[in-house]
Amino acid sequence: MASDDPLVIFTPSGKRGRFPVGTPILTAARQLGVDLDSVCGGRGICSKCQVTPSYGAFPKHGVTVIDTALSAWNAVEARYDEKRGLTKGRRLGCQATVQHDVVIDVPPESQVHKQVVRKEVTARAIKMDPATRLVCIDVAEPDMHDLSGDWERLAGSLDKSFGIKTLQPGLDVLTKLQTSLRKGDWQVTLAVHQPDADSPAQVLDLWPGYFDTPLYGLAIDLGSTTIAAHLCDLTDGTVLRSGGIMNPQIRFGEDLMSRVSYAMMNPGGDAEMTAAVRDALDTLIADLASQADIATDRIVELVCVCNPVMHHLLLGIDPVELGQAPFALATSGALRIPARDLDLTSLNRAAQTYMLPCIAGHVGADAAAVALSEAPDQSDDLVLIVDVGTNAEILLGNREQVLACSSPTGPAFEGAQISSGQRAAPGAIERVEINPTTKEPRFRVIGSDLWSDDPSFDETVTGICGSGIIEAVAEMRMAGLVDPSGLAGSAAQTGTARMLPEDRTHAYLIHDATATGGPKITVTQGDIRAIQLAKSALYAGARLLMDEMQVDRVDRVVLAGAFGAHISTKHAMVLGMIPDAPLDKVTSAGNAAGTGARIALLNRAVRADIEQTVQRITKVETAIEPRFQEHFINANALPHAVDPFPELSRVVSLPNVSFNASAAEGGRRRRSRASTS
Amino acid sequence: MASDDPLVIFTPSGKRGRFPVGTPILTAARQLGVDLDSVCGGRGICSKCQVTPSYGAFPKHGVTVIDTALSAWNAVEARYDEKRGLTKGRRLGCQATVQHDVVIDVPPESQVHKQVVRKEVTARAIKMDPATRLVCIDVAEPDMHDLSGDWERLAGSLDKSFGIKTLQPGLDVLTKLQTSLRKGDWQVTLAVHQPDADSPAQVLDLWPGYFDTPLYGLAIDLGSTTIAAHLCDLTDGTVLRSGGIMNPQIRFGEDLMSRVSYAMMNPGGDAEMTAAVRDALDTLIADLASQADIATDRIVELVCVCNPVMHHLLLGIDPVELGQAPFALATSGALRIPARDLDLTSLNRAAQTYMLPCIAGHVGADAAAVALSEAPDQSDDLVLIVDVGTNAEILLGNREQVLACSSPTGPAFEGAQISSGQRAAPGAIERVEINPTTKEPRFRVIGSDLWSDDPSFDETVTGICGSGIIEAVAEMRMAGLVDPSGLAGSAAQTGTARMLPEDRTHAYLIHDATATGGPKITVTQGDIRAIQLAKSALYAGARLLMDEMQVDRVDRVVLAGAFGAHISTKHAMVLGMIPDAPLDKVTSAGNAAGTGARIALLNRAVRADIEQTVQRITKVETAIEPRFQEHFINANALPHAVDPFPELSRVVSLPNVSFNASAAEGGRRRRSRASTS
Repeated sequence: MASDDPLVIFTPSGKRGRFPVGTPILTAARQLGVDLDSVCGGRGICSKCQVTPSYGAFPKHGVTVIDTALSAWNAVEARYDEKRGLTKGRRLGCQATVQHDVVIDVPPESQVHKQVVRKEVTARAIKMDPATRLVCIDVAEPDMHDLSGDWERLAGSLDKSFGIKTLQPGLDVLTKLQTSLRKGDWQVTLAVHQPDADSPAQVLDLWPGYFDTPLYGLAIDLGSTTIAAHLCDLTDGTVLRSGGIMNPQIRFGEDLMSRVSYAMMNPGGDAEMTAAVRDALDTLIADLASQADIATDRIVELVCVCNPVMHHLLLGIDPVELGQAPFALATSGALRIPARDLDLTSLNRAAQTYMLPCIAGHVGADAAAVALSEAPDQSDDLVLIVDVGTNAEILLGNREQVLACSSPTGPAFEGAQISSGQRAAPGAIERVEINPTTKEPRFRVIGSDLWSDDPSFDETVTGICGSGIIEAVAEMRMAGLVDPSGLAGSAAQTGTARMLPEDRTHAYLIHDATATGGPKITVTQGDIRAIQLAKSALYAGARLLMDEMQVDRVDRVVLAGAFGAHISTKHAMVLGMIPDAPLDKVTSAGNAAGTGARIALLNRAVRADIEQTVQRITKVETAIEPRFQEHFINANALPHAVDPFPELSRVVSLPNVSFNASAAEGGRRRRSRASTS
Repeated sequence: MASDDPLVIFTPSGKRGRFPVGTPILTAARQLGVDLDSVCGGRGICSKCQVTPSYGAFPKHGVTVIDTALSAWNAVEARYDEKRGLTKGRRLGCQATVQHDVVIDVPPESQVHKQVVRKEVTARAIKMDPATRLVCIDVAEPDMHDLSGDWERLAGSLDKSFGIKTLQPGLDVLTKLQTSLRKGDWQVTLAVHQPDADSPAQVLDLWPGYFDTPLYGLAIDLGSTTIAAHLCDLTDGTVLRSGGIMNPQIRFGEDLMSRVSYAMMNPGGDAEMTAAVRDALDTLIADLASQADIATDRIVELVCVCNPVMHHLLLGIDPVELGQAPFALATSGALRIPARDLDLTSLNRAAQTYMLPCIAGHVGADAAAVALSEAPDQSDDLVLIVDVGTNAEILLGNREQVLACSSPTGPAFEGAQISSGQRAAPGAIERVEINPTTKEPRFRVIGSDLWSDDPSFDETVTGICGSGIIEAVAEMRMAGLVDPSGLAGSAAQTGTARMLPEDRTHAYLIHDATATGGPKITVTQGDIRAIQLAKSALYAGARLLMDEMQVDRVDRVVLAGAFGAHISTKHAMVLGMIPDAPLDKVTSAGNAAGTGARIALLNRAVRADIEQTVQRITKVETAIEPRFQEHFINANALPHAVDPFPELSRVVSLPNVSFNASAAEGGRRRRSRASTS
């Protein structure tokens, strides 16, 4: 690099250096650490290193250099252009060589670490830095004077051409190595897995010749009730397909603790549940690959997030310890496991699984994924993040400190253990409104955009799902059908015949199709109590963290999981599911756990980051905190209104009705017990 | 360590240091780097740290300190003595503490790196330094204030107590971790695998509480014909059991090239052979474990040596490339593979396999094992090492340089492709003598110590094995029944009716049991030719290496494998199988490849050594060296005598018989062709 060598400036990085005439642009980029992709190692095959020379007048020359700053278009580029087409103005970085001072633009698609902007509400970009990528190399042929093995020559090439040191390959690679090399005429494309930039690589698989169909990965959110997966292109981060499947463990127990009990009561029960979830996961993966029409051997990575019980059951670890204090995890650290050790067959035999770390015995890798996605540790203001599933994961924090806990809300928010409850599926009531004057309901079911009072509405109604029951209870409270203690009034008390007597309490009739052989859908006193218990648990968890942090309010609230997607924020607020916050400071993050999984899938460096972040998160165990019980009891009532929400002001006008003395008495007794404890 | 602290001197190491009063001997030993074993980490359980205090008069005190130099016998020692018995004069190093200046002897059995002296001819010691060892640790119980996982607490203890950093455990360990910890009351014994002293360890398995039955390993010599295994105690190197089994691949082809052909001709043939050899290996391991009455889960390591074709077939790699130039190996490096990836089930599920490196396409890990065992690279004089199996591995070298080649001797030396040939088994003729005057034979069969001319001899004779046919041909030459070109004479030419006419040539009758329905055992002209081909190949290989090194003779010869064990050195010399050397410089190394495997099993550090040594060995490929063909042709004749052996002088007196003109002519033609080429 003499001082009179041509100057090469790369944009957008701004990196620059002088290089001897004849230096390929790819070589210059590598020496400067410019992010310029190449799979084929500079042989004009992969075209990943395309650049756009933008010539400029360089002071030294005092003239505008046109066209001659780089070497002339060569035969390799011409052949590539003829075969695959090269966009006008583009050159192959491995072929074009430096002749004079030049500015080279690296277009986004030629950058290894391209950025993928999330389509969701929070427009956070994911920097592409996958752990597994394709590399195409030439391997020297053996001859009688070089008696090294084929693998040793391949490893030498990989080090020389890409600076990648490799570990000993697995038997799958060794058994196909020799035929692949010969079939590809001593050129092979490798799937190279490097957990971090400094660690030695593992060759997961290889294909003869140059092979440029992308590698894929899966981001899995393994919930107690559903398993969701995103099939992603590991080159550009595209989500090819997203899909879900019911967690078949449901048959062993609706909620986590029922499954732990099943494992405790039935010898081999944990193994049964492990087999069930692995099988479902495998089916889901096969379905997604089939829908996307890709070969399963191109799926080389899988990132999985889940709660601790699902974590243990997927790994084949008996979750019994998670069912009793001190809720000891077998392991809390992040795990790297060959997918085949999890009996997953619908992906590459050498595919690698990454499990995010768990935060504590009740706060799992799903919470870690939410922390990765929503980054409370990088927030300037105090953020409360609530992810509701069968268990609720709650994070509270800012740059200073992050606290986490998990609260056992139970499955009520998902429509389970509700008299007319069902899972979210076509025919389930998902939205409910009750006219405060007439007390008449209208509703919408999944699968239709029409409200039930629309003349065209003719849907079959099968039940009520989680979001429906939440809205129904909140609407009943707003319509004065339920008192602050949660007691439902009689027809006489409320003035509507829709309040039916049932088992010494009262139930609200939403829909009656018994005349046509259909169901009668009511919200019973038991349903209201179930929702009260669930929301109290959720609220108490959040309050507990606020106590720990010694704050009375939070700056903003992020609702993740089912909350943002299906549960109405307004109704959640009416029920007092979450602490008060200005409505414009309440945002939805969608499936934050799934997004966290996707980030960890596409960027290997964040894995180390979240592993460290998790270490710094303060875990709060709800099960042993006396204040949790206290908050839980205090949170049992259904509030009248939430001040910060003007559109809810009508609630304020509701009378603080008490349908009978005993209920009011009960409410007082609870409060007094709480205040003296 | 103040200068007036007591001085502790350890023998036999001579290491010394001053330690505060009250320092346990084990602690002092660790700080000084004294080789003192401990599995339990100093809790008086394992008794591995037993020492013998030998008190002396220290100048400083001017008196002989008796008994008070160490702390008094304590309760832990008393309990141990009561339960298990402590040899008189011994103390537990972890319990006894320093009180005054003291000399402490570490008995051999308390040293981790004890030396095991081989029982075989070469009394080379193996330093114990196994890659896998037992460690017993206490793990902190979880509590609500330490929410880390059980594994993380265990890993912390292992680092703190033993300075061992660990990798993430496999699922087998994770799934049994929690029950083991609780069953062992927070004490577990781990099988810790550390490939070298500096690398992080892998916990292969664990057991509740303190568990001191040893771990075992297997040294496997995987030959084309037989598979031999030694079951070794990884604590002290003891060989518990040795055993062998036929290589079932025999049915796919007697020699290596037949098996390569089988793989080429039959789709899936390689997989068939892989399954066969893995199955046999598994059976052998199960048998040895059963004979030794040990649980298979205590077998945690396996070291395997074999030729390149067996190497590939065991790994499941199609050996087709090894059947044609340039004989490219899939991989030549050493391999570390979980035993279960080789479908081996009769050992611990996490057992690790180590395969020694191959030297070249025709010179395998068995040759590397011979190099490890016989260490030609550490020899001051020039040593020729010959290991005969179906292929012969030949090493020639000294401290300066080591050369290696493999020579395709074929299976004749093992009794195959011989008219009356059979494998070495009871009933096979293994020793033959022919009276030079009467031309009458006598022989011995495997399973009997009597010669056939002994009146008590009444063995059933079934055939002739490799060593028998070698002796028979050599004896026929010495008795004048065969001329220098290898031609067998007629009854008339040799004066004995034992020379029977057969297919226009002549065969020598050794034994005729046809009258009783038994076999007629003869040595035919074809048998002599087979032995000539085999010995020419062997001799030519050795000569080729001598040419490469530009030497005419070697200082000493080491015969390994079947040679030393079964083939008579004298007869081998008569046949000209190996180059001349003084008889007192010809030694036998027994099963050197198996010994090499055992060394690598018991000492992890030598693995790195042999991997480097192999890199420095110069490989000579017999198949493409024109001089190999030249030597091969020149070596075809059967020499009259070998000067350096006075006891063979009778051979010198043999007439240089030529039974007919054409044979003599042939001999001359060969010689003249060779000299003009």
